Amino acid sequence: MEQKKGFHVAVVGATGAVGQQMLKTLEDRQFPIGKLTLLSSARSAGTKVQVNGAEYTVQEAKPESFEGVDIALFSAGGSVSKELAPEAVKRGAICVDNTSAFRMDENVPLVVPEVNENDLLNHNGIIANPNCSTIQMVVALEPIRQKYGLNKVIVSTYQAVSGSGAVAVEELNEQTKAIINNEEFEPKILPVKGDKKHYQIAFNAIPQIDLFQENGFTYEEMKMINETKKIMHRPELSVAATCVRLPVAVGHSESVFIEVDTEGVTAADLKELLKDAPGVVLQDDPENQVYPMPADCVGKNDVFVGRIRKDLHDEKGFHLWVVSDNLLKGAAWNSVQIAESLIKLGLVK
Amino acid sequence: MEQKKGFHVAVVGATGAVGQQMLKTLEDRQFPIGKLTLLSSARSAGTKVQVNGAEYTVQEAKPESFEGVDIALFSAGGSVSKELAPEAVKRGAICVDNTSAFRMDENVPLVVPEVNENDLLNHNGIIANPNCSTIQMVVALEPIRQKYGLNKVIVSTYQAVSGSGAVAVEELNEQTKAIINNEEFEPKILPVKGDKKHYQIAFNAIPQIDLFQENGFTYEEMKMINETKKIMHRPELSVAATCVRLPVAVGHSESVFIEVDTEGVTAADLKELLKDAPGVVLQDDPENQVYPMPADCVGKNDVFVGRIRKDLHDEKGFHLWVVSDNLLKGAAWNSVQIAESLIKLGLVK
Repeated sequence: MEQKKGFHVAVVGATGAVGQQMLKTLEDRQFPIGKLTLLSSARSAGTKVQVNGAEYTVQEAKPESFEGVDIALFSAGGSVSKELAPEAVKRGAICVDNTSAFRMDENVPLVVPEVNENDLLNHNGIIANPNCSTIQMVVALEPIRQKYGLNKVIVSTYQAVSGSGAVAVEELNEQTKAIINNEEFEPKILPVKGDKKHYQIAFNAIPQIDLFQENGFTYEEMKMINETKKIMHRPELSVAATCVRLPVAVGHSESVFIEVDTEGVTAADLKELLKDAPGVVLQDDPENQVYPMPADCVGKNDVFVGRIRKDLHDEKGFHLWVVSDNLLKGAAWNSVQIAESLIKLGLVK
Repeated sequence: MEQKKGFHVAVVGATGAVGQQMLKTLEDRQFPIGKLTLLSSARSAGTKVQVNGAEYTVQEAKPESFEGVDIALFSAGGSVSKELAPEAVKRGAICVDNTSAFRMDENVPLVVPEVNENDLLNHNGIIANPNCSTIQMVVALEPIRQKYGLNKVIVSTYQAVSGSGAVAVEELNEQTKAIINNEEFEPKILPVKGDKKHYQIAFNAIPQIDLFQENGFTYEEMKMINETKKIMHRPELSVAATCVRLPVAVGHSESVFIEVDTEGVTAADLKELLKDAPGVVLQDDPENQVYPMPADCVGKNDVFVGRIRKDLHDEKGFHLWVVSDNLLKGAAWNSVQIAESLIKLGLVK
């Protein structure tokens, strides 16, 4: 069977923080692009963007934009995906959606290739890319779950502002300058652009990411809880999350407590396991002060894991520190990786 | 019985970050000072300091400096306390020591007045002030332990650089300016001044506070674990900690998971309990985005608690977010508060 040489790829949200990383990732991976269509809101349409040395003009995304498209990568907000992904599917495209629009839809696979690549086989045109903070955690935990079982996850996150888009990075920078120069400033974006109040992020920590739900958890926390269960196919898994925004531009960190099912597991066992786990780089050498940090992960596709230690009281309890570039493995790279898996599995027509 | 009108108070480490806050707290509290002696290392001796409108010259701390002293507040490093606190006791002073030198000594009470004030009755001249991150956590958890029992604590911290002294705050500021101005910089202080390697703290998160121990936990983490058990008189309590340094100048935050002993407790029960708990200010109104943040706690003596919610799987599990000024309740205020308790209990001769 002859393999198709190049695919018609559309990037929706091409001018955004994640969209830009998607284009760079497509370049870096030498993704087999036959034709590239860059789409955005009406507001950003007309922007010129360079990809693989050629100049593209970004067009306004409309249903008919997807005629002839093989793979559409969506990262332009949930409402855009809800409206246009079904239109793209109608026209024969497979959509990889980086918003939360379809993640919990039971007809939509939620995929991290290192964890559940085969869920792609059951797709109905749309594949959801999980939330950034979920992706890096399941990459680190799935090898442990497979070998030793997993019955409890409690995570506290340390999340970068770029998760709220380029405007939030800008806000962090502007506030930082204002504080250093002893000038006034007015928070306008964080913690959540669409929420009622906005707080200082520079030199602060905000324990709110996304809107609060009725149960007292934020939507970000519920995403981590529900998506982890779905990706691991473990609806009964006990997962809890506390999500916190930090004055860091790029790179999410997570302090994760887990309980395994098996007795007698050691920290050395987990290190040995994660050393060769797909997508994971083990950085765990306390004696030489080697552990992952957000400043070191920027621009890298891997999930970095360190500080692995056994709980001092709980025979089946372990602590880990997990760091990754939230724009890459947390978004752009995982989306492109899904597209690569679709091609590998022969699922792109 | 006639009450002594004013005490001879000595502050050891008077020029340091915590020492300065101690002096300010003594002023704010109108502490009954008869005579004030300010002490420091030879290097800082000679510095002029204003307290209650009078100018004091800081003197080099020596054994004979403590002649006639009633209460000595130590915050000049563990080695200074180890050498001079026993000398002060010999001369009749009661020492409140803010270093880790004596905290785990079984002859030394480790005191947070809201939690275990009566342990002061068994003192032998030295009282230890706990680690900053421990203090704020036990203030929040002790009312829960008393009413509902407590069998598990898992904490992830978000700690300010001022816990490493004024030089670390300076380093954060200098690095931040350098990064904003696109200039080179060389980390020299954090994560631990005396450790081999130093890392960027600005726009980063460092999962190391104090030196690593053989079991893979840092000394800061072991302080939180062991001190919590000692203060609560619960040696068997399951406590785990992951301690992380953030680009925040002042104010430690903590994401705390607990398991209580009692069934049927609700988040509303815990909020009701903490609303009136000593030393606690409840800030928990998600609908109006009310929760504690380090930027809001600076300069306040209280421990702020919010984001209280019941675990979605563990019937006895709860999550809390605890924030306090690490230089005040975490150090200076708790020390002065111990001194006030000593006077109240008639323990100062």
